[in-house]
Amino acid sequence: MTVTGRELRSTVTDDGTLRLTLEDVALEPPSADEVIVKVEAAPINPSDIGLLLGPANVSTLRASGTAERPAVGFEVPRERMATVRARLGQSLAVGNEGAGTVIASGENAKSLQNRRVGMLGGGMYADYRKLKARDVVPLPEGASAADGASMFVNPLTALGFVETARSEGHRGIVHTAAASNLGQMLQKICLKDGMPLVNIVRSDEQEKMLRGLAATHVLNSRSDGFRSQLVDALDETGATIAFDAIGGGSLGSDILQAMEQAASRRMTEYSRYGSNTFKQLYIYGALDLAPTVLNRLTFGFQWSVSGWLLFPFLQKAGGDVAARLRQRVVDELTTTFASHYTRTIGLAEALDPDVLRAYERKSTGEKYLIDPTRG
Amino acid sequence: MTVTGRELRSTVTDDGTLRLTLEDVALEPPSADEVIVKVEAAPINPSDIGLLLGPANVSTLRASGTAERPAVGFEVPRERMATVRARLGQSLAVGNEGAGTVIASGENAKSLQNRRVGMLGGGMYADYRKLKARDVVPLPEGASAADGASMFVNPLTALGFVETARSEGHRGIVHTAAASNLGQMLQKICLKDGMPLVNIVRSDEQEKMLRGLAATHVLNSRSDGFRSQLVDALDETGATIAFDAIGGGSLGSDILQAMEQAASRRMTEYSRYGSNTFKQLYIYGALDLAPTVLNRLTFGFQWSVSGWLLFPFLQKAGGDVAARLRQRVVDELTTTFASHYTRTIGLAEALDPDVLRAYERKSTGEKYLIDPTRG
Repeated sequence: MTVTGRELRSTVTDDGTLRLTLEDVALEPPSADEVIVKVEAAPINPSDIGLLLGPANVSTLRASGTAERPAVGFEVPRERMATVRARLGQSLAVGNEGAGTVIASGENAKSLQNRRVGMLGGGMYADYRKLKARDVVPLPEGASAADGASMFVNPLTALGFVETARSEGHRGIVHTAAASNLGQMLQKICLKDGMPLVNIVRSDEQEKMLRGLAATHVLNSRSDGFRSQLVDALDETGATIAFDAIGGGSLGSDILQAMEQAASRRMTEYSRYGSNTFKQLYIYGALDLAPTVLNRLTFGFQWSVSGWLLFPFLQKAGGDVAARLRQRVVDELTTTFASHYTRTIGLAEALDPDVLRAYERKSTGEKYLIDPTRG
Repeated sequence: MTVTGRELRSTVTDDGTLRLTLEDVALEPPSADEVIVKVEAAPINPSDIGLLLGPANVSTLRASGTAERPAVGFEVPRERMATVRARLGQSLAVGNEGAGTVIASGENAKSLQNRRVGMLGGGMYADYRKLKARDVVPLPEGASAADGASMFVNPLTALGFVETARSEGHRGIVHTAAASNLGQMLQKICLKDGMPLVNIVRSDEQEKMLRGLAATHVLNSRSDGFRSQLVDALDETGATIAFDAIGGGSLGSDILQAMEQAASRRMTEYSRYGSNTFKQLYIYGALDLAPTVLNRLTFGFQWSVSGWLLFPFLQKAGGDVAARLRQRVVDELTTTFASHYTRTIGLAEALDPDVLRAYERKSTGEKYLIDPTRG
């Protein structure tokens, strides 16, 4: 039996327009190793917004279509078209992860029938999603779709940071935009695992929230004493690796500088090449699309700034590590890895101009969940 | 018997002044494993200028002292004082490497007596230098002090680039400021070793010079078609590692972008995270002191930008590799690793205002040699 449902699509055309639409898609019955899941919850992560809106200028939003089949269009600034050359003309499904109920299953996946599952693989902003059985994970008893909707990207990323820090020989971690859902998970993991963590946030409110999670080091980058407090915290923790969600501007560079200053407190002899302490900055997000500015002269030559992405990390770490991390997420789904959503919206609502502008703002701590069963 | 000679010193004081002076230094006789070398040639490398002049504003130069014992002073801009905090008040000897004749030797180093040697270890801008016998290398028969003066930093750096590229799995190299002495050595090594090399220069003259060394890929970053030529050259060579002497500005970022564009020519499916091709930029110099600007959105998430320094590289590579590279330098001293000097000056002349301004300009292809025996 064919199942038909809506699917949210994002398309950039070569006239410099990005369009979001809801398309009707018919799914053929699953093959032996596949299942069809009725989507009940899918989070809007910053990484989803990247695919959804690309480099579009959100202030140029123009709504069209009907209430049931809304559509929105945006202009893509000419100078940013180069960054989307590879997706021109392709109608792309959106939504990295989600959760729902298995409504059809192939002969090798019958044990999943009627189970509530979390799933990973793109195209989750849809009524139905067909995928390989190995890309879904049954939720523990009593867990809601909302509980399981974000069980991959943020939990595995937070665990990945700690794995990366350990395997590269660092003794402590710095995290920016630390009040995010991901940041809260990272704080809980670090507490449990005894890994020192220096949280950088942008408001007193965020600081308070993290202190409520028993965080030791929480610094507000907008407060007066930020830079010297950061050096002190780095000196105390020995943190020499940072994960930065912001990307643009010079905060990452400031962190490297502070690490260098902390290291030079322990130096006895001057070297014009700076300290021997190796400092690593990983940029894993793009909350600020502006260029990254590195004031190299302030942090010597023993440093590296790199992109960090979940999937290459998992691939490099290998199957055993990935399986261990996934199991930990299932075990601690409603504790360490609990996600909080500011608002739940329907699939058509995701194309409502006011709603769209609100989730596009990417305010730290705010998070939207799409529940297609709401319409 | 004590040997007395002049030594060039650089001092930054906390009132924001950098002073260069010639100090008289008395050397006690060498211990068992030491030698004293009469310095006959020491190059002025960009890395030496970094220690010599630090972040001083060269336009504020003020000469003092006498013809025989000249001294010069500069202002250090207030905002740059943070970068020299660790050297405040220290009278630092300058000059990474040099060559000369052994005039005194400890009992375990008698075989070096009267030999002409190359040497590494700082403080070479001096009449005499005492150092461990293991830090000098006897020059081959017939080699002059000028031949051996630059046998460490540039040759080992150029060889280190090729070693690094190989050990990190890259198939070709990009090099900026490629017309430098170092760049010419790198071109010769790459030709000999069959490593594809993309040279980036800044003038037609420099391009011509490298083509005279049988370089295949030489691109002028100031020519009109530079960006598309770069993508073509990267596509052709498969180069995914770059060594950048400039550091400031966005050239490094442009190279990563071009690597990504070359990689995306081979992509069949769009990914908003960019290609799976890992791209590495190493910054090994600071010809431009401005901040490094990374336009991350143009090159995905599979990248790393890092500092590259000779000594940490040699340490990481291990003793066997270091010995192999040093031997190759001796074997090919007057061919692959021949250095060319624009001008030879005396030690006191290094503090002459006009001469100083000339070598401080760091024009690619120009290189000064200090010969203290000239006065």
